[in-house]
Amino acid sequence: MNVTLEMQLEETTGGITAPLGFRAAGVACGLKADGRDLMLLVADRVCSAAGVFTTNVVKAAPVIYSYRTVKTGRAQAVVINSGIANACTGDEGMQRCEQMAAEVSRATGLSEDLVLVCSTGVIGRQLLMEKINLGIEKAARVLSPKGGHDAALAIMTTDTHPTEMQVALRNAANRSFNRVTVDGDTSTNDTVLLLASGMTGIRLQQGTQDLARFEYALCKLTEMLAKAIARDGEGATKLVEILVHGAANDADADAIAKTIANSPLVKTALFGNDPNMGRILAAAGRAGVQFNPNTVDLDLANIPVVRNGRLVEFDKPTASAAMKTDEVVIALTLSEGAGEAVAWTCDFSYDYVRINADYTT
Amino acid sequence: MNVTLEMQLEETTGGITAPLGFRAAGVACGLKADGRDLMLLVADRVCSAAGVFTTNVVKAAPVIYSYRTVKTGRAQAVVINSGIANACTGDEGMQRCEQMAAEVSRATGLSEDLVLVCSTGVIGRQLLMEKINLGIEKAARVLSPKGGHDAALAIMTTDTHPTEMQVALRNAANRSFNRVTVDGDTSTNDTVLLLASGMTGIRLQQGTQDLARFEYALCKLTEMLAKAIARDGEGATKLVEILVHGAANDADADAIAKTIANSPLVKTALFGNDPNMGRILAAAGRAGVQFNPNTVDLDLANIPVVRNGRLVEFDKPTASAAMKTDEVVIALTLSEGAGEAVAWTCDFSYDYVRINADYTT
Repeated sequence: MNVTLEMQLEETTGGITAPLGFRAAGVACGLKADGRDLMLLVADRVCSAAGVFTTNVVKAAPVIYSYRTVKTGRAQAVVINSGIANACTGDEGMQRCEQMAAEVSRATGLSEDLVLVCSTGVIGRQLLMEKINLGIEKAARVLSPKGGHDAALAIMTTDTHPTEMQVALRNAANRSFNRVTVDGDTSTNDTVLLLASGMTGIRLQQGTQDLARFEYALCKLTEMLAKAIARDGEGATKLVEILVHGAANDADADAIAKTIANSPLVKTALFGNDPNMGRILAAAGRAGVQFNPNTVDLDLANIPVVRNGRLVEFDKPTASAAMKTDEVVIALTLSEGAGEAVAWTCDFSYDYVRINADYTT
Repeated sequence: MNVTLEMQLEETTGGITAPLGFRAAGVACGLKADGRDLMLLVADRVCSAAGVFTTNVVKAAPVIYSYRTVKTGRAQAVVINSGIANACTGDEGMQRCEQMAAEVSRATGLSEDLVLVCSTGVIGRQLLMEKINLGIEKAARVLSPKGGHDAALAIMTTDTHPTEMQVALRNAANRSFNRVTVDGDTSTNDTVLLLASGMTGIRLQQGTQDLARFEYALCKLTEMLAKAIARDGEGATKLVEILVHGAANDADADAIAKTIANSPLVKTALFGNDPNMGRILAAAGRAGVQFNPNTVDLDLANIPVVRNGRLVEFDKPTASAAMKTDEVVIALTLSEGAGEAVAWTCDFSYDYVRINADYTT
């Protein structure tokens, strides 16, 4: 999955500078052939910071670098480049992260230790520091509280204790970003960062209503962003929500939902608006989970297509027409217990192949 | 994966009637819009029989039916239809299997208990028995020892004790068919059958050289057929062999090989002849296996692209040209132990999307 965060943020109001106390800028520094490829976010004050990072064994240098910074619970700036992922780049890659933080420090006057660094793009190449440094300098000059739409970062901010914020972010990520798949390919660079400037003056205390409200709002926001990631998958024509109920437990339900969400046969059928319920059941059946296939119900785009494991007679053209929309729900009900899960994905189109077959060459 | 077995068998000499004592026929009975859709294989004698079947929880009726027959270790005929999978068809589907065996019995004079039944095609629909019965009658009339190329079944035959044959087939399947993936979608109908007519007069005894030779030859044959399945994946332009060495154990190596083989990002890069080593490492890193990413070596189409976890400088156009062939090898070497594995797959092309987006409608 190679997501341009800009696209997601277009859908939110105000973007990353909507909260008080943040300025941002997005500029072109020449890492990509055209378009913006570097963003800088700077807070007016030192922020509480939290982050969750990819579980991939192969971690990009900025993931390792920023993980260390986030562990301090404090940050004041985030610099992100696209075009080059700074992954599989060895010690040299780690040095590039330090150099980026140093350059942000030089251009903004902030401490290096408060700068988070992220990269996304092609794996293996070293960052071109002359371009990066020019970009940082350029961005620092045009930082603006209206710069959210020029920049690119998924973020929400309020004020809370760093540790609680980390727990809240991890919970929210599990309920949102970890329920999304475009093609199952967890990247070397996946990163979610949360900064709170404290400018609202609100202080969240453990056990309070405010904290509960914050966690709820954070979940809703991350869910919205997660769905945007699925919707913006390469070549996607629709968002697909997979609901599984009645599994023996939540883990079983999750395994089934994810297997359906990652099935290329299901995803190509969704692209073709083909109510091919067989592929959905076949994907469920190979999820590594035991269930009685003779008591399964399946609804596709709100049309009952399977009852008790058997195809229900339905009008194919009507079902196909119902799938010709930008949001399709697949609802699978088993009879094993109370386990449930949701997953979000998109369809597989010709453009998925076109975009990904042409990425580096 | 929806494989037409005919395609694979074109590559073997003589097909399923190459061994002594088998006659076959492939006919059109109208389940599919055009082309042959029913085959019949009949042996001159009662055969030793073995079979391995899909591990999918959702099993097609003929899988359940033929599993029971194979357990007796004896069979003399196999009838296979395409077009309709007879999966998710309930008790009615099981009755259709019995009816197919009865019709073969009627047309050939063999006992119903000796008839194996297989189906492949669209899930959910009931078999149209009038067409099936006409097809069986038609096929029985034109059975021929030269009918292998008209029919469709992956089979090898010699003579051995049924139980040993089952073990040999399971081992061979694990080393071949279970190492193949087109899109990760284990079907509801996957079946491998092995029949031995005994017509050669060779008797295989446990612990003998002949048995060892048989097992070796069976492995080679199933490996050849397995590669043919990958090569004939929908829209495939090339066979891809993934070799993993140096994992902590074979299971780890297998998990990594399969994750690379199923990665849509890797497969679209292969279609585009894009030497995108980053996607291969990223897929390896999300296989759920621990390894040191800084000691990984990767060769792509015999070109070293990663050494010690870092991109090696290589000429992209040369590497891309080396990938423009019908067999590409991806060789990944870790430094965790002696675990190794191989997997076979194909690339993901526009035609994969086209074929699978249009399957039922």
